[in-house]
Amino acid sequence: MDFLSHKEKYEETVRKACVVYKKLKEMRKGTGSIDISRENIITSVIHSILKDGDPFSLNNVMMIPVIIGQATPRQQAMWLQRTINYEIIGTYAQTELGHGTFIRGLETTAHYDPTTQEFILNSPTLTSYKWWPGGLGQTTNYAIVVAQLYTQGVYRGIHLFMVQLRNEETHEPLPGIKIGEIGTKLGMNNVNNGFLGFENVHIPREHMLMKYSKVLEDGSYIKSTNEKLAYGGMTFVRVSILKVVSTLLAKACTIAIRYSAVRRQSEMKPGEPEPQILDYRTQQYKLFPYLAASFALKFTGKWLLNICTEVFSELEEGKLERLPELHALSCCLKAVCTTEAAQGAETCRLACGGHGYMMCSNLPSLYGLITAACTYEGENTVLLLQTARYLMKAWQQAVGGMAMTPTVAYLKQAVSGSNGTPCWEGSTACIVSAFQQVAARKVKHSADIMGQRIQEGVSPEDAWNMTSVELVQCAEAHGRAILVERFVAAVAELNVSVALKTVLAQLRDLYTIYTLLRNSGDFLMYTEMTPLDYCNLQNRMETLLSELRPNAVGIVDGFDFHDDIIASTLGSWDGQVYDRLFAAASKSPLNQDTVNESFHKYLKPMLKSGL
Amino acid sequence: MDFLSHKEKYEETVRKACVVYKKLKEMRKGTGSIDISRENIITSVIHSILKDGDPFSLNNVMMIPVIIGQATPRQQAMWLQRTINYEIIGTYAQTELGHGTFIRGLETTAHYDPTTQEFILNSPTLTSYKWWPGGLGQTTNYAIVVAQLYTQGVYRGIHLFMVQLRNEETHEPLPGIKIGEIGTKLGMNNVNNGFLGFENVHIPREHMLMKYSKVLEDGSYIKSTNEKLAYGGMTFVRVSILKVVSTLLAKACTIAIRYSAVRRQSEMKPGEPEPQILDYRTQQYKLFPYLAASFALKFTGKWLLNICTEVFSELEEGKLERLPELHALSCCLKAVCTTEAAQGAETCRLACGGHGYMMCSNLPSLYGLITAACTYEGENTVLLLQTARYLMKAWQQAVGGMAMTPTVAYLKQAVSGSNGTPCWEGSTACIVSAFQQVAARKVKHSADIMGQRIQEGVSPEDAWNMTSVELVQCAEAHGRAILVERFVAAVAELNVSVALKTVLAQLRDLYTIYTLLRNSGDFLMYTEMTPLDYCNLQNRMETLLSELRPNAVGIVDGFDFHDDIIASTLGSWDGQVYDRLFAAASKSPLNQDTVNESFHKYLKPMLKSGL
Repeated sequence: MDFLSHKEKYEETVRKACVVYKKLKEMRKGTGSIDISRENIITSVIHSILKDGDPFSLNNVMMIPVIIGQATPRQQAMWLQRTINYEIIGTYAQTELGHGTFIRGLETTAHYDPTTQEFILNSPTLTSYKWWPGGLGQTTNYAIVVAQLYTQGVYRGIHLFMVQLRNEETHEPLPGIKIGEIGTKLGMNNVNNGFLGFENVHIPREHMLMKYSKVLEDGSYIKSTNEKLAYGGMTFVRVSILKVVSTLLAKACTIAIRYSAVRRQSEMKPGEPEPQILDYRTQQYKLFPYLAASFALKFTGKWLLNICTEVFSELEEGKLERLPELHALSCCLKAVCTTEAAQGAETCRLACGGHGYMMCSNLPSLYGLITAACTYEGENTVLLLQTARYLMKAWQQAVGGMAMTPTVAYLKQAVSGSNGTPCWEGSTACIVSAFQQVAARKVKHSADIMGQRIQEGVSPEDAWNMTSVELVQCAEAHGRAILVERFVAAVAELNVSVALKTVLAQLRDLYTIYTLLRNSGDFLMYTEMTPLDYCNLQNRMETLLSELRPNAVGIVDGFDFHDDIIASTLGSWDGQVYDRLFAAASKSPLNQDTVNESFHKYLKPMLKSGL
Repeated sequence: MDFLSHKEKYEETVRKACVVYKKLKEMRKGTGSIDISRENIITSVIHSILKDGDPFSLNNVMMIPVIIGQATPRQQAMWLQRTINYEIIGTYAQTELGHGTFIRGLETTAHYDPTTQEFILNSPTLTSYKWWPGGLGQTTNYAIVVAQLYTQGVYRGIHLFMVQLRNEETHEPLPGIKIGEIGTKLGMNNVNNGFLGFENVHIPREHMLMKYSKVLEDGSYIKSTNEKLAYGGMTFVRVSILKVVSTLLAKACTIAIRYSAVRRQSEMKPGEPEPQILDYRTQQYKLFPYLAASFALKFTGKWLLNICTEVFSELEEGKLERLPELHALSCCLKAVCTTEAAQGAETCRLACGGHGYMMCSNLPSLYGLITAACTYEGENTVLLLQTARYLMKAWQQAVGGMAMTPTVAYLKQAVSGSNGTPCWEGSTACIVSAFQQVAARKVKHSADIMGQRIQEGVSPEDAWNMTSVELVQCAEAHGRAILVERFVAAVAELNVSVALKTVLAQLRDLYTIYTLLRNSGDFLMYTEMTPLDYCNLQNRMETLLSELRPNAVGIVDGFDFHDDIIASTLGSWDGQVYDRLFAAASKSPLNQDTVNESFHKYLKPMLKSGL
């Protein structure tokens, strides 16, 4: 696949995707609905077959959930079954060339015309072209389009519209639809990301998704009772990303750890055979903390998904209290976890030396998939600043002695001045408490300097911007505190064998101590930890690395990734690294001829010229 | 180019390369020699045309220097002019499938047969196949091959051999030569990296490079008087990497800073227009420190190149004293600078949001080029451990009161217990001294715990491995101390206008303070810096960010990269980001037809199935 041209890759991807999705379609037809557990299996098969992205995926990931969440029953009757059955295939068109995370800035317009009872969609500028939606280029024939609504000459804000893009029989773009794909990318090259412009595209009134806000026949606008309800889908996707990136990170760790058990290099002691590179402490230090991190992300993702499910069912009952906390959590953890997973995957790649640079290791693609998640569904820095805004509000509540939501309750300590770690004894509980203390003190510090700036006459907006480096850092510290606390809680709750629990406790300790040491400045500044405590923790971390060494391969084998899903010359179960590298190279089309024709056409004339 | 298949990319690259190299060839023919300043210009043209790598480059970068450095005058007469004139084209084949940085582990053998006066080359195992050399796949017809020499039945160590790989007329591989290319990679996909195996390949005795060690006709082996002389070439390449990566980082900064001055997003104050994203403090915090880093790397690279030139000319006079220091410096700074440049380029990419993920931004390729340098010419962790070995020796010298070489003289402070920063006053001199103090204390700490382990009965080798995480960290701290000291010295020495010096001083201060803050744990542990000092430095850093803001675009314009060399839709001089993105997408072959044929072949049958 890597040897094909951009166009050939797309065509080959569609061919493969149609085989798998036909199976999915038949399965759904058989049951008449979506069976989550069976879908999960087929999704992992799809990921293994379409490893650099899937042009059909937004139909499942966005189109169907958005129809369920935002369309009226009447609208659902029109579209839902058709999308579930893959009679039509859709995407979600929000991001534009000129605007991403800042949704209010989108420029696509939808003007309502009561005389025809239609919306007229337009892309008034170059920057208003939709840009990025998966499958939009050549694949999908429908899209949910996000646009600025105007009715009765009044601006009504952002709304969603179902738009047919292509003729269902011929696939030709409909009149006024300008569509294409955006070109090659760092990764996800088989997603067929596209662009989309509108030139006076007319759609029926019934094509605005009207579960909440409505436009009546005469153009009267009925506002949603709560605008936040419309953002549930985005929160859910952010929450889902934790599971996605923890799995991708686990794959990268599997590849790097298996390879490190096969690769032998250098000599540790004169005359002895070359050791497995996994025996080098520096290699363990690169890989094991991220192996531990994959568990931290997995446990935290599961916990957050539970909260998300609870909050969404509360929403159905009209209870909105926990929505802001969920929003802040999803922003914060999406940002912190994707950054950590990306660093982890890249560290795994580099730990495999030159061979990690080869596409056939699959490590570059895994990094490409993870790092994309640092940007999509909300750019990480923007999300951290949204988290910080929540934390600043929570801080005011703490100062005011008000009740706190669970995940920020720890802020009260910093207000009362009571010390979370009165004496540093280095226990797991002490470390969890220290992470919270660091986060709380950083929140307090940010609030203090922002307050000081405002007192000095700086406008609140400028003070916010001037303090934003600290604000991002306090949101990150908050995220780390949650990850550490959740990992500790998850291991405590697990009902597993003593042997397994021992290993999980080692991973937990490694994760917490490694994360602490990487941010040692914070702990030396804001907790009772002394330089001597630091050295003791460093010792403990090194002991943990050697304790985990004998089980490292067993742990990644335990992920139970099939070789076809790992899809790596370096990371297969049988450890036949070098044979697989050779076999992969032998597939290069350049190796089919002993002499490439460019020799005769270009190289020989150059070498022989001027003799 | 990004849209082509792997094979097409190669063929197109050779076509372009032949045009440029023909010019180079004519230029050299005209003067009869290599004119460095003219070559520098043509090299930058080559880089702009062959932006994802050049299959001809190792002829210049390795083949010619190795012939000059390692071949006898008689051998030079055979090959040098032919390679300079591009009558033949060569590569350097050292790395094997199973061995990289650990050269002693290479498995390719060269057995001398006095009856025919030939060496017989063999690849005894799969892992002994040469793997990675640039241009080796389908391009070059000669290679310098690194192999284990045996004569008179005795093993003689690693030596270099000139080997013809392909017939000069037909380009067919010679008998016993098994050759091909290794497949697709994260980046550098136009380098045509290859593999190479030998099956009883006979080469004349005169083809061993014999400037130092020699094999006589009867197989007698004359050992080089100093084996280290053979490694000069590798040191020079490592030193050169600093300039390469500082330039690549400067390109990435140029793209990201120009884009950030064009891109507008969100609202800072209600009702005001969307600001340039470069006005966000968080964006400045991402980009400006790496802009400063590109200067740190540039100044340090220039200084190191001067030392390298001096030491090499001393070598010619038989003086070897400064070789170990140069070796340690080149290892340490190659590792620290490539890691920093890679982080910087990736930070620049992420700071451009989704558009940074597009290949047409050129940011993924720049990262691909830089991160490769973290692995090639010595894997960074291995190099840092070599540096640490030097530092441990230097520490023993310092403890023993012996004379110290200049770049480690600062270690004496830590021995005498005298404090480099008796009171923290935050001046530039104080900060430089603090970096040295941190490095010295870390060296002392590593030496102490290693000594302690040995005292407890651990073998020196195991103690080394157990301490290797700290050893790597002390080598990194040493590298940072040098970078900071060199940046300060370079700005002090520059004879430029007051205005320019002011800006350079801001960049210097930003670099030093940012680097300090990122490693604040070290400074809180090992210097007199207090948490209050930390906060003051954070304030100073933020002031520097706002001071640099008005000049940021001017500084990157000052790099004077031509648009064709930047090769980025986001980073061109005119700031026409969105037009260029659109123009790039319109070149996608997928956009040439309104309906891709895969619709009729695969997609429509799937959508219509089961209806």
